[in-house]
Amino acid sequence: MTPFERRTNACQKQLQDHGASAAILFPSQNLYYTTGFDEEPSERHLFFLLPATGKPVFVVPDMYGEHIRDESWVTSVRTWSDDDDPLALLETVVDESSLEIGEPGDENHLLVDDTMWAQFTQDLRDVFPAATFGLASEVLGPQRCRKDSAELDALREAATIADQAMEAIRELGSSAVGMTETELATEIETRLTAAGGTGVSFEPIVGSGPNGAKPHHGHGKREIEAGDPVVLDFGTRANEYPSDQTRTVVFDGKPSSTFVTVHELVQEALETAVETVEPGIEASEIDSAARSVIESAGYGEQFIHRTGHGVGLAVHEEPYIVAGNDRELEPGMVFSVEPGVYIPGEFGVRVEDLVVVTDDGYERLNHTNRGWACE
Amino acid sequence: MTPFERRTNACQKQLQDHGASAAILFPSQNLYYTTGFDEEPSERHLFFLLPATGKPVFVVPDMYGEHIRDESWVTSVRTWSDDDDPLALLETVVDESSLEIGEPGDENHLLVDDTMWAQFTQDLRDVFPAATFGLASEVLGPQRCRKDSAELDALREAATIADQAMEAIRELGSSAVGMTETELATEIETRLTAAGGTGVSFEPIVGSGPNGAKPHHGHGKREIEAGDPVVLDFGTRANEYPSDQTRTVVFDGKPSSTFVTVHELVQEALETAVETVEPGIEASEIDSAARSVIESAGYGEQFIHRTGHGVGLAVHEEPYIVAGNDRELEPGMVFSVEPGVYIPGEFGVRVEDLVVVTDDGYERLNHTNRGWACE
Repeated sequence: MTPFERRTNACQKQLQDHGASAAILFPSQNLYYTTGFDEEPSERHLFFLLPATGKPVFVVPDMYGEHIRDESWVTSVRTWSDDDDPLALLETVVDESSLEIGEPGDENHLLVDDTMWAQFTQDLRDVFPAATFGLASEVLGPQRCRKDSAELDALREAATIADQAMEAIRELGSSAVGMTETELATEIETRLTAAGGTGVSFEPIVGSGPNGAKPHHGHGKREIEAGDPVVLDFGTRANEYPSDQTRTVVFDGKPSSTFVTVHELVQEALETAVETVEPGIEASEIDSAARSVIESAGYGEQFIHRTGHGVGLAVHEEPYIVAGNDRELEPGMVFSVEPGVYIPGEFGVRVEDLVVVTDDGYERLNHTNRGWACE
Repeated sequence: MTPFERRTNACQKQLQDHGASAAILFPSQNLYYTTGFDEEPSERHLFFLLPATGKPVFVVPDMYGEHIRDESWVTSVRTWSDDDDPLALLETVVDESSLEIGEPGDENHLLVDDTMWAQFTQDLRDVFPAATFGLASEVLGPQRCRKDSAELDALREAATIADQAMEAIRELGSSAVGMTETELATEIETRLTAAGGTGVSFEPIVGSGPNGAKPHHGHGKREIEAGDPVVLDFGTRANEYPSDQTRTVVFDGKPSSTFVTVHELVQEALETAVETVEPGIEASEIDSAARSVIESAGYGEQFIHRTGHGVGLAVHEEPYIVAGNDRELEPGMVFSVEPGVYIPGEFGVRVEDLVVVTDDGYERLNHTNRGWACE
C-alpha cells in the first residue's frame, strides 16, 4: 500500500469520527498528500470525492484522465469533456455512491478543501443545498502536522541543500556588492539547483538595506552596497518537501553599530526559542520565549510578526508559532523559528532555522553559520 | 489617475448596477488589476474591501502595510498583527463605513474573489451571516475581458518574446535528441529569459512521443528520440501579462506518416478557426470551425479539449472557446486557438496561437513557423 493510500484510509476514519459524510478536495497539497496527484488549480472543475466509507472517486476533465490513472493509486476516475457539465457528473457520481449528501440530516456535513476557490465552493453549495460545510483540514490537519519518517527525510534533505546554497552565497563576499537584489535572487536559484534542489519553495527574499525592513519584500532593482545588511530568505524542495531558512548578512564593508547590536539580539532570541522546544509545551510558549528576549532589549515594537510556522507540503502550515496558539507540540511536528527586528527606512534582521520536535526535545535542520560577516 | 484606480472606479459603477454592496478581494489577479498590488495568497487574512460607493480599504497583515502603501494607489490601509483577530478588524472597518453588509436586505449582496480560498470565504460567511454571496467576476469579468491598449502592448510583447524562444528551441535540431523533457524545459526557461521575458507563465509542457498524447503532461525523465513528435507548449510574461503558444516539432529523424497527416490537419483546423474570428460571432463558432475540420478527417474523438481560452492577467480566463459558449466576441478580447489531436500511446499534435479581436477581424500575436520540421 502506498503512503498516499494509507493516508486516505486514515482520513476516512477521521471523517467517520467527525460525523462528516465526505471531504471534497481539488488540486492542492491535501490532494497530493492523499492521492500522489500533483497539479495546480485551474478554471476547470477537478474534484476528489473522499467519502467517509466506500471508494474514493476522482471527477476530472478528460485531459487528466490518463495522467491520474498513471500517477495515483485511485482506480475510480470519472472524466468530463469540455462540452459536458462537470456538476451534473458530480451529482451522478454522488447518486451512484452510498453517500447521503443532498439529503438533509446529521450526516450531511461536507468538508471542502481549505484552498478551494470560491468559484467551486459556490458550485458545491448549489449542488448540495442541504449540506453544511466545513474544511478538510478538520480531518487532514492533525495527520499532516505529524510528519512520518519519509517526510522527515525529505525535509532534512531540503534543509541541507538550502544550507549549502546559503554557504555558496555567503562566499560571494564583496563580489555581491553592485549586484541588484533580483540578480542575487537568480544566483540563489542557480545555487539551490546546483546543490540538488528542485526549484524554489517560494520566491526568494533579498531585502537589502532599507528593503530589509519590509519582511515580505521580494527582490527588486536596488543594488547592494558595501555595509548593507541583506536579508536572505529562501528555500528549495526535495521529494516535494520544502525548506525555509533565513540569514541576514553583510557582504562587504562595515555595518552600523545598531545593526550589529540588533543582529546579536535576534540570534539570542532564536537560540532561546529553539532551546524551549519539547513535546507538551504550547506553540505560543516558543513565540513568547523569542519575544521576551527582544522586548527586554527594547525592540518589541519592531518584531512585527509571529515567531514561526509549521513546514510540510505547505511552506506555511500548522502549527503556527504565535501568541494565543495553545496547541501542544507533538513529536514529528516541524516548524520555523524566525525572530526578526525591522527598523523602517534603515534595515531589517531576521534569522530563521527549521526544527523538528523529537520525543524528548528538538532536532535542528539548519546548521549553517548564523552570523552576519561574510569573511 | 493610474489605470488601477480607473478600473476600480469602473468596478464600483458595476457594483451599483448589480445592486451589490461590495466586492471583497484577496491576493489574486483581480486584486492586481484594481490596486497594482501583486502578491500570492497565504494563510494570513488579506482583504481588499471594495464598496459600491465610498473609499476602498485594505485589511492586511501589518508586515504588508508599508509595501502596499508603496505599491498601490489605495490610501486606506488597515493592518493587523499576528496576535490580533483579523476578522474583528474587518468588522470594525465595515462598521465604520457606510456599508450595509451584515443587515438583511436587498443591498446585502457580497461578491467574493473567484479564487478566494474556502478557509477565507467560510470566515466571511461567519462574519456576515445575513449576506448573500456571489463572485467578483460578475462585475470585473466583462471589464477584464476587453483589453485596453496598455494591456495589448504587454500581450504583444510577451508573444514576440515567446516566438523568439520557440525559434531558438527549434534551432536545437538534432542536438535536442537525447535530452530529457525536463532538460529541454530548463532550456526553454533560459531562452525565454534571454529573449527578455519574466519567468514562465506556466510550467512548460514538453510532451515527447507518447507523452504528447496527454495534453497536460508537464515534463519528465523521458529522453527525446529521433523521429519523436514533441509538443512544446510554453509562455512567459512581459509587464505582468502572459504569452501562451504551442508548436509540435520533430527535432531530428523521420516521423510516422500518420503524424505528418495529423500535423497538417491540425494546422488546417487552426487556420480555419482563426479566419473565423470577428466581432459579433459567438465564441462557440470558433470552436466548431476547428472541430469540424478535424471531425471531417475522422479524428473528432481524438480532439479531447476545447479549442481555446481567453488570455489576460490569467493565462486561462474568459472568453472560453468552447461548444455552448454563446458569448459574442468584442474588440479587445484576446484568446488562444489551439486545436489538438491525441493518439494514446503514440503521440499528440497541438498548434496554438493567440489572437486579438479587432474592430473588423483579428490580429495574430504569434508568427513563428507552425510546421514540424526543424531544418
